[in-house]
Amino acid sequence: MTPGAAFSDEEPFTVDEIKDGWSLFDDEERVEAFHMLPRPEAEDFFLLLSSIDQAHLVQALPPPERRSWLRLLAPDDAADLMQCVPAEQRPGLIALLDDVTQKDVTGLLAFAEDDAGGLMDPRYARIRPDMSVDEAITYLRKLSRERMGTIYYAYALDAESHLLGAVSFRDLFAAASEKKVRDVMQSELVKADETMDQEALGRLFSRHKLLAIPVVDAQDRMKGIVTADDIVHVVQEEATEDIQKIGGTEALEGPYLETPFWSMVRKRAGWLAALFLGETLTASAMGYYEDEMKKAIVLGLFIPLIISSGGNSGSQATTLVIRSLALGELKLRDWWRVIRRELGSGLALGGILAAIAFVRIAIWGHLGWANYAEPGTWIIATTVAVSVIGVVTWGTIAGSMLPFILRKLGFDPASASAPFVATLVDVTGLVIFFTVASLILIPQLAHAVVGH
Amino acid sequence: MTPGAAFSDEEPFTVDEIKDGWSLFDDEERVEAFHMLPRPEAEDFFLLLSSIDQAHLVQALPPPERRSWLRLLAPDDAADLMQCVPAEQRPGLIALLDDVTQKDVTGLLAFAEDDAGGLMDPRYARIRPDMSVDEAITYLRKLSRERMGTIYYAYALDAESHLLGAVSFRDLFAAASEKKVRDVMQSELVKADETMDQEALGRLFSRHKLLAIPVVDAQDRMKGIVTADDIVHVVQEEATEDIQKIGGTEALEGPYLETPFWSMVRKRAGWLAALFLGETLTASAMGYYEDEMKKAIVLGLFIPLIISSGGNSGSQATTLVIRSLALGELKLRDWWRVIRRELGSGLALGGILAAIAFVRIAIWGHLGWANYAEPGTWIIATTVAVSVIGVVTWGTIAGSMLPFILRKLGFDPASASAPFVATLVDVTGLVIFFTVASLILIPQLAHAVVGH
Repeated sequence: MTPGAAFSDEEPFTVDEIKDGWSLFDDEERVEAFHMLPRPEAEDFFLLLSSIDQAHLVQALPPPERRSWLRLLAPDDAADLMQCVPAEQRPGLIALLDDVTQKDVTGLLAFAEDDAGGLMDPRYARIRPDMSVDEAITYLRKLSRERMGTIYYAYALDAESHLLGAVSFRDLFAAASEKKVRDVMQSELVKADETMDQEALGRLFSRHKLLAIPVVDAQDRMKGIVTADDIVHVVQEEATEDIQKIGGTEALEGPYLETPFWSMVRKRAGWLAALFLGETLTASAMGYYEDEMKKAIVLGLFIPLIISSGGNSGSQATTLVIRSLALGELKLRDWWRVIRRELGSGLALGGILAAIAFVRIAIWGHLGWANYAEPGTWIIATTVAVSVIGVVTWGTIAGSMLPFILRKLGFDPASASAPFVATLVDVTGLVIFFTVASLILIPQLAHAVVGH
Repeated sequence: MTPGAAFSDEEPFTVDEIKDGWSLFDDEERVEAFHMLPRPEAEDFFLLLSSIDQAHLVQALPPPERRSWLRLLAPDDAADLMQCVPAEQRPGLIALLDDVTQKDVTGLLAFAEDDAGGLMDPRYARIRPDMSVDEAITYLRKLSRERMGTIYYAYALDAESHLLGAVSFRDLFAAASEKKVRDVMQSELVKADETMDQEALGRLFSRHKLLAIPVVDAQDRMKGIVTADDIVHVVQEEATEDIQKIGGTEALEGPYLETPFWSMVRKRAGWLAALFLGETLTASAMGYYEDEMKKAIVLGLFIPLIISSGGNSGSQATTLVIRSLALGELKLRDWWRVIRRELGSGLALGGILAAIAFVRIAIWGHLGWANYAEPGTWIIATTVAVSVIGVVTWGTIAGSMLPFILRKLGFDPASASAPFVATLVDVTGLVIFFTVASLILIPQLAHAVVGH
């Protein structure tokens, strides 16, 4: 049954059928299906849609219907929806909101989208510390009837809006009704500054497992609250951006299949071209070591092996450090601890790979692979093994330090992508390899020639 | 002031000082500082700690004190704590909980840690659909006094525990008190199956922006609820695992600096050694093309450049696809759409890099770089450019398909790490390069020699 054909019969859809088919429908079919739902179910369904789906649907609905759907939304959700709408259409939709919400939404849109200030709901339950528990409950009950913001936590403020404490609804409920809010509230609070970026905010939620965190300004005045339901999405988005950067792409900012083809090519071509230009230095380096290459063509055979071992160990180190920096497990000041650790790791990992290389080349040599083996299998095996230790150690240190350097310079550490580190280490790895070769293999070669 | 010196003066700590110093203190200092807090503040402080910090602290406290702290925790939080404790010490700690919680915690620990079943709180507010709103509120008020689970949503079940609907506390509060729960509850619910893995659960929370999702078994019987505060942490953890795998490491399962040195080396050495062994095939491949190498030593110069361009474009494609699969934006059945898209991307990106290579080599040739230029700059530039198109297109397709193949075979798509794809493409890239060279460059060389 094609989605189009679905509309030929007269039976109204069930919510489940509409939900299942939603991603397959075009805008027109969505509106048609949506109109088939009785109002209460349509409201539930609308509230469950993602902001981007809500935005598409509202824009597709006939203009007179839009207002009542927009007004279903809390200010932060309405602001999210507005961000999914082309800028030129926003004023028209914002005008459909009630006066108070209009102000809130405009205020929210003015914040950078990825600040605590941009994620917060400015409507929170504000109580006075000297209210009785009963008064507070009655007040929250009234708020809940007006559908104003989250009521699961109430915040006690002084006259200047300084945040004094918070009390959960459950604690209010559990307390004796004549007690004062002051006596039942928690005054030790996890708070967020309104300029805190969303990555740090995500860490705060993750560490403390809270349902809501109050947002305050520099003077500790309460500005709004951020709730965990909004943060799950943020944490996922931040991770997606980092993963895409680690892979050497600019962040796509949308699902893969929905990103237009040329926009995706552009986001990938930039880094790829820069890395390619960087990598042309390998040809320059090899041109520089022309003599060594000519003397021992066998060196060429091991170049991809050696430089890739540096690239791989560098990719490991850089992703570990990028993630730890993003999670706040590592701070800029930890660079020295990391470098000591990675020096050890690099030597250990290089040693393991060197042993593998040595054994592999020895076996290979004995299996009759000797066309290139002029200076002798053992010398080649030793040269490769020593180079691998050097290149892996260097790759590990370069990969672990690059994110620190980028952050120090004010860039996103995630730009120290795996391909970036691999390219950096390819060029320098060649230099290490040829230096080792000219110390170990080349002299033996001269000796062998002399010995002939 | 060193943390040790902090304890020499007699002034008790403030909570803020303890919070700031916590990560610097050893276990003994933590206990000492914790004991300085008045009981209510100590409770708030304890509840704000992460599960791992709670576990450390409880184990460090004198045994008689442990019970009252453990009993502060909700069952899901207690289960989280137990998972941070060595298995042999768990039974002793679980025995300190009250009977009901013991059963809950043991039940939770039996679930795989990363199932919906393992994340859920089995204590939820259960109401009957034919209760009046007033009765429901009174009942929730009672629950809140007993500190039982989340009360912000109440779930209406029938006699066999089938989930009929849910109502938020705010909606109960806003409703006329004589109405029935049935009339105010939402029956269209986002639900999670108890076997749903935590990655899918994270997507559900992220898509629908909910504070809690009910967990049901295969017969739609309610088993518990999962709340957004627990999910933020899960989403972050899943992303960390994927990022580490993409970088070519096994997941560390702990902060970088807290992972023991040899454990970290082991988690990195496995993949690194496997990739290294794979990469030795490059030497075999180059041995196979020995004749071509000897005929045109210039080929060697461009090997790192060409194979790395394939590795980089493959890393991009694999990370984009891995993340889209993890977010559920791509399903297994989308592979054909992706391959068509990536064929286009690969040709476009390859074309861009080929143009850069062509211009770069042409300029280089004219600047007097001619030592290796026996067959002529234009032939070399053409050979490299054509190879780059082939290698980049192949790298892009291989990188985008590998995660699909891994998922199809039942492995984690994130194992298609950037280094894995780079290694795969290095070996095959050499074959492409030498094939192109033997078609374009080598014949010209023969021609040039004949022409002499």
